[in-house]
Amino acid sequence: MTDGDEPQRSTAEPLVEELAEAESLALVAGQDIGRIAFSGRFGLTVWPVNYRLHEGSIVFRTGRDSPMDEDLRTGLEHGEYQVAFEVDQIESGAREGWSVLIRGPAHHVVSEQERSAVARTGVTPWVGGPKEHYIQIVPTRITGRRIRQPGRS
Amino acid sequence: MTDGDEPQRSTAEPLVEELAEAESLALVAGQDIGRIAFSGRFGLTVWPVNYRLHEGSIVFRTGRDSPMDEDLRTGLEHGEYQVAFEVDQIESGAREGWSVLIRGPAHHVVSEQERSAVARTGVTPWVGGPKEHYIQIVPTRITGRRIRQPGRS
Repeated sequence: MTDGDEPQRSTAEPLVEELAEAESLALVAGQDIGRIAFSGRFGLTVWPVNYRLHEGSIVFRTGRDSPMDEDLRTGLEHGEYQVAFEVDQIESGAREGWSVLIRGPAHHVVSEQERSAVARTGVTPWVGGPKEHYIQIVPTRITGRRIRQPGRS
Repeated sequence: MTDGDEPQRSTAEPLVEELAEAESLALVAGQDIGRIAFSGRFGLTVWPVNYRLHEGSIVFRTGRDSPMDEDLRTGLEHGEYQVAFEVDQIESGAREGWSVLIRGPAHHVVSEQERSAVARTGVTPWVGGPKEHYIQIVPTRITGRRIRQPGRS
């Protein structure tokens, strides 16, 4: 291999495909764990949360007891805080997968009407304690991509 | 169930355990996919990347061809940019797992000596094209937690 050539791996170069919003959301609808990212008290914070897709928005719950939730709540209490939400499905062995990134304001669900609607998604957090607060991310920007190995369908 | 009771799920409340730095790094050493989070041109950005743990730091590679890499490189070119790196392993069915969050400056590996050292980690990116640029995150803060269901070892 000479300088300037693309390095040859044991596999051919994978294919990268940008995903349309609709396809990205369809993929997100099929998963239940995503990662919420926001600027918290200690800098950029990323945590996995259990979520549901509800009418095109991400819904998850936070509580009032764990350090994670305190941090998240504090960060989010300034009204409509801009956050990012990442969902992916990756096969490490096959070196294939997709990831979707949703950006938008994190909306605190406070009215009874809204609360009732998102509660019907059945989203439940994993961590103990009262988890009475719903956060809803209404996407303003949705990007996604898929990586496949050539020769695989 | 009356108002004020903690909601009862089909399982008992899970146990949340904060992880020490050493244990967090040991868990990170056993994985190879993490999520880099940074403030990019379009706001908070989170992407999965293939990484290696190298002498306590996170090493991954970026290229110069895909929108993800361009965005990441642009964001990171302002010297030692503060980023977050998240690694987790979650069993969705069992509702158990752990996550580790590493924060620190993203260091561009430029000297030949540094480059040679991190290249020996063998970290390879998934996406095609020349991936000639190494990024190294030297942790300034490491936090982690594990969620287990009661009664399971």
